[in-house]
This record gives sequence, C-alpha cells and structure tokens, in this order.
Amino acid sequence: MTDSAPPVVTFTTDFGVSDFYVAAMKAALLRHCPRAVMVDITHAVPRHDIRFGAIMIERALSAFPPGTVHVGVVDPGVGTDRRLIAATWPALRQTVLCPDNGLITWAVGRLGPAEVRELTWRPSTPPSNVFHGRDILAPAAGLLAAGVPIGQIAGEAVSPLLLPVRPARAIDDDVCVIHIDHYGNATTNLPATLLGGWPDWRVRVGGRELIGLCRTYHDVPVGEPLILVGSSGLLEIAVCEGSAQALLGLRAGDAVMLRRA
Amino acid sequence: MTDSAPPVVTFTTDFGVSDFYVAAMKAALLRHCPRAVMVDITHAVPRHDIRFGAIMIERALSAFPPGTVHVGVVDPGVGTDRRLIAATWPALRQTVLCPDNGLITWAVGRLGPAEVRELTWRPSTPPSNVFHGRDILAPAAGLLAAGVPIGQIAGEAVSPLLLPVRPARAIDDDVCVIHIDHYGNATTNLPATLLGGWPDWRVRVGGRELIGLCRTYHDVPVGEPLILVGSSGLLEIAVCEGSAQALLGLRAGDAVMLRRA
Amino acid sequence: MTDSAPPVVTFTTDFGVSDFYVAAMKAALLRHCPRAVMVDITHAVPRHDIRFGAIMIERALSAFPPGTVHVGVVDPGVGTDRRLIAATWPALRQTVLCPDNGLITWAVGRLGPAEVRELTWRPSTPPSNVFHGRDILAPAAGLLAAGVPIGQIAGEAVSPLLLPVRPARAIDDDVCVIHIDHYGNATTNLPATLLGGWPDWRVRVGGRELIGLCRTYHDVPVGEPLILVGSSGLLEIAVCEGSAQALLGLRAGDAVMLRRA
Repeated sequence: MTDSAPPVVTFTTDFGVSDFYVAAMKAALLRHCPRAVMVDITHAVPRHDIRFGAIMIERALSAFPPGTVHVGVVDPGVGTDRRLIAATWPALRQTVLCPDNGLITWAVGRLGPAEVRELTWRPSTPPSNVFHGRDILAPAAGLLAAGVPIGQIAGEAVSPLLLPVRPARAIDDDVCVIHIDHYGNATTNLPATLLGGWPDWRVRVGGRELIGLCRTYHDVPVGEPLILVGSSGLLEIAVCEGSAQALLGLRAGDAVMLRRA
Repeated sequence: MTDSAPPVVTFTTDFGVSDFYVAAMKAALLRHCPRAVMVDITHAVPRHDIRFGAIMIERALSAFPPGTVHVGVVDPGVGTDRRLIAATWPALRQTVLCPDNGLITWAVGRLGPAEVRELTWRPSTPPSNVFHGRDILAPAAGLLAAGVPIGQIAGEAVSPLLLPVRPARAIDDDVCVIHIDHYGNATTNLPATLLGGWPDWRVRVGGRELIGLCRTYHDVPVGEPLILVGSSGLLEIAVCEGSAQALLGLRAGDAVMLRRA
Repeated sequence: MTDSAPPVVTFTTDFGVSDFYVAAMKAALLRHCPRAVMVDITHAVPRHDIRFGAIMIERALSAFPPGTVHVGVVDPGVGTDRRLIAATWPALRQTVLCPDNGLITWAVGRLGPAEVRELTWRPSTPPSNVFHGRDILAPAAGLLAAGVPIGQIAGEAVSPLLLPVRPARAIDDDVCVIHIDHYGNATTNLPATLLGGWPDWRVRVGGRELIGLCRTYHDVPVGEPLILVGSSGLLEIAVCEGSAQALLGLRAGDAVMLRRA
C-alpha cells in the first residue's frame, strides 16, 4: 500500500441485487469520491436481519486494509428518529457508517470497542425519508474516503446500541450457531483460541455428537459431519461436500455444547 | 468531480449473474477504456422485460454524474434488423447505448426528450448475430467513455421507439403500478409533485383503500399497508416491515385510483 | 491499452454472493495490488462443479486483454495435499491461478496447452486449511498483477490434472451439451469451424431433430427450437424467446448427433 493507493469503500446491505438501490448508493458516492474502489460485501442480508449484517461488517473490518470506509445499510427504521453513526477502530484505521441499530455489535465483540460518534452530515438538499443509504451514508462515506476529516461529518461521541450477541468467552459460556453460510456450514460464536490447540473436543449440536476437531473438510468421509476452525477463526460445523444445515437441521441461534473427550 | 475523474460506465441487462455474459461486456469495454469505473445497475431484469429495464435506465441517468455512459441490453431482437441507438440528454451530459426497442421510454418520460442517433460503430471483425452487447454496445461505450466524440460512433438523428408507458400528468390520468421492488414495495407512475404537498390522499389499489400520505415506512403499525413518496419521487405503496406485493397481491400494470379525502 | 492501464484481475468461484467470501478475496488482493480492476466472472458455479468453472475460466481467457490475471476457486479439496497451480498462455499473456483439479481443462482444450507451474508462494503467516482462495490465490494474484515475476511465486513445471471433456474434433466425434446458460440455451462442445460454413445441418438432441443452422434466435417462430452458432463460437441449441433446457429437457452431458441434410 502506498499513499497514492485509491481509497476503498465497501457496501453491506439487505437491498438484494435485482433493484437500482445498490447502484444509487454507488452513484452518490462517486460524486464525492470519483476514485474510490467500491467493493460489495453482500447485498443478500435477509431483509432487516441486523445480526446477519453485523457479522458481515465485522468480517469486512477484519479483512480490508487501513483507510477502508464501510457502509452498512440494514435500516428498517429509516426516516424515524433513529440515529446514524460513524464507528472508528483506531488500530485498524477503518470506519463504519450505518444506522445505530446494532450493526456494529459483532465488530465490537470481536475487535473491541470503537470510537462512535453521531453522523451529523446532511446533504444541502433535504434527504428523503426512505433512503438514507443513498442520501446520507454513501455521500458521507465518499467525503471520508476523499480525505475529509471525520470531525467535519460527525459530532459528539455516543454510546451505540448493541444487540445481545457476543463471542463466547469460555467453552461453558453460551455457545451457539450465529451464521449459516452458502454451503450450509454453521459458524458458531466460539473463537478457536478457546479450543487451546487440543484436538479432542466433542460437540453436541442438532441432536448429534461430533467427536474430534478436524483440520480440513476432507478429514471425514463425504457426507459425514465434522467440526473444524472456519475461515474467520471460529468453531464451525460442516459436512464433507455436503450441508450441515440440511443434515443436522441447523439454524442461527441453535445451542452448541462442547466438552473435551 | 475533477476533470481527471475516471469515466463511469453502467450496465443494465437481463443476463443474470450466473453466466459469463456480464464479464464479456466488461472485458470488451476495458479493451477500449482501461480506466473506466464499471458499475452494475442490475442484471436481474426479467428476461426480455423492456419496461423493467427502461425504469432501471432512467434511475441510472437520474443518479450518476455528468459524463456517465450507460449500456442497456435487453435485446430479444439481437441479430435482426432492429437498430442500435445512442441517446444523449445534453443537460445531464449522459448517454445511453442500447437497442432501439423502448429501453429509453421511461427516461424520456421523466427526464424529457433525448438527442437520439443511430449507433453506427461496428468492430473491424464482424460482430456475432447473438451478442451485440459484447460486440458493439460495450466497445462503443468504451470509446465514448475514453473521449471519442459521439459523432464518430453514431450517425443520423432517428426517432426512437417508445413504449406506451409514461408518468401520469394529473391525478385523474392513468395511474398504475410500474415496478415491484426487492422488498415488495410497489412504485407507481405518479410523480410526487402532483400530490401538491397535501397529506390527505386516499388511494384505492388491490381492493383496499389506503388513507393518508405517510412520511416514513414506520408511520403505520408493522404489517399495515401505507402510501408514501418513494426514493425516486414517485407515489409508492408499501407495507411496514412487510410486502405490499404479497399483502395486496400487486403487480406491474395494476390500476391505482387517487382522490383527496 | 497503454502501459499505464491498471492491471485486471478476475474471479470465478462457487462461493455465491450471499456471504463474505468473495469480498475476503478482494480485500486480500487489494493489499498487494491496490490499483487492480477487479471483475467478477461468476460466483454462481454450482458447488464443486469443476467443469462449469472450467468453461467460465476459458471464456474469461478468451475475452480479457493481455496482462489479465484470473483467479479460479472451485476447491472441494482445500487443505488436502492437492496442488495449487499457475497456468500461463504466453500468446495471450494471461495467467490463471487455481487448484490443480481440472479447472483449466476447457481452456487447454480450446486455447491450447499452457505453461503450468506449481504455485509455491505462501503468506508469511500460515494459511488456513479452509480458504486458500483468500489466503494464497488472491494475494498471489495481487503480486502477479502488481508486476512480481511469475518465477517468484511459482516453481517447477508440472503436468496439470485435466478432466475428460474437450472440444469435438470432427462432427462424428463425441458431441454433447456442455453448459446450460441463464436463458436455457444449451452450448455444445462443437466448434462452429467444424460446420464448414454450410447451413444444411440436422441435429438430433433431446428426442427432437432440428433442421437448418439459423443465423439469429428469431429465425424461427417464438417458442420454436433452433440451432445456431453461440457467442463463444460453439454450436448452440436454443428456443426463440424461450428455454431449450425446458422445452427439450436438456442438461450438461446430453449427446448431440449431427449430420448434413
């Protein structure tokens, strides 16, 4: 990365990709920051599923280089008196702009507290009441990506709304499935660091007991379930070339019990 | 926007995203304009649904900065004698390249008449008869985005084909649903300017009467239908945290009756 | 194309677009090549369908300009002892980085043999066992796109694994459907060059005989099946404004018989 690297802005929404809404945000952003590299995280957050969006936003923060600005729009309360916020993790030098509805919950849980301010920037023509992603968040992200100091778009420090979901702190903490991915793999809220490097774990989930932490998806025969450390450093339940969601009937929120064999 | 801002090109198609077709157009464009910022409007236009594509293209024109070039490909007649056109809105300094099959209808209706010429540019190797988006439209867009004058890719002024769909000009004009979005919100062809700033409207649609223009989706209880001004400045029928399409059984073309209470 | 054109990197995966996985690769790539133009070929390769992925990768190679780097990730064997490879077509000046599982099969069949080396580059922190697309392939592609010589990321020449699928070499060779596209058009493995410019072909497929090579999709009435040369220069079976897949019940692998009328 050189200083002349173009700024990066990411988008995480529940807009889907069949409509104009994602492009409307990109158009608004390009007006303020024509050189931005724009990356879609996902627009397939289930409608109004803030927890799903929060997991995606944490992953974006963990992956992208310093200087990246992230726009998160899962916003059932658009136009009401809910706040907009700018949340910065100074050690990462990255900022998330989003409604204050819990979208930064998982990032705070895994990456530590953020410096959160109210996003006070507003366009010169009044924004609509139905699409603040286009009218406020994307242009503000463009300004930030173009080098405008955060103090010019955000005001006082505020205490953000957080959802009751957090990484497990011990193996006897509340461990549960937090996300089902495209392949049917089930990610839990248990950081792999809590597994202590031991392989001899037993996990009870979906009425099955899975024995022994695997290293790869192919450590068991095709079609068999397994546990391993997933790509985001969390305990994951998977099926070799199959779907843990389908085989074990898993969904977000399902309890997971661990013990050493 | 500085003069050195990279050129922007958008794509609106019915190609879906499971195939190579979108990337084929981008590859063709990059050969002529390697610095283009390429933005997908949507590739989920229902197959051959020119009206849906036309609505997306108008929204792109309304949102993107001057200089943007838009490629529209919903093209059931590819390889036949249907024309290709370049339509420019001088006040916007934006141009749409597309088949002459009605794709600019909604833009003409909302933004006013365009300067429309026949797109006469052809590649040095003969184009295929099955994919003019890749063989003609995308490279021509690349040339235009790279600064080639439009007179070098387009010829005589022509009168474009327009579909029988237009914005309502009065509240007793033909008002109807023109688009159902990802959330099940139903956009009508009625510009909000015709509502005169009054809140006391009654709308009859899908066998229900909806009373009072709302300001936000949350002005009614969760699950209840409402009317409000949508993000493109048109009257919209929605359901708070639900789907107007599902609740009211709406589809494009459905009649909408308005009167003041 | 000038020398200062930004490098192009494409992505072909079976990741879907509902998860963070595609963005994770882009983040890894941008850390090594912040100026890359990143193009999605498709992320809708059916899970673990290497043949589908191989067809997409060949189309990318055929379409993109010299210098393009392609990342292909359909990788059921991630974390096992399967190799990663870098396959270069010198005449195209393009390179594919992917697992050595057959993903370059169709490109070798249509474009000729590649210079294939083992991809030996590894990150300074050990890669995960579950996501080499993010941990190895994308950063290596970033290095290559940023100008690092291939000898610094790849080692010895190796003989790649190829699947038993190849372009037909004669009209009485094994001709079959290799791909069904978004519209239900069925692409075969028969290069149009073998059709010798004659229009008087009869094709038997899906229990029907289709007579006469058409020039466009509209050479038959709406709803009728036809044969023509598709956009990738292969014999294609289609239905005018309909789906050959649905009408004729076609799928990849179905035999196709040709003779002159």
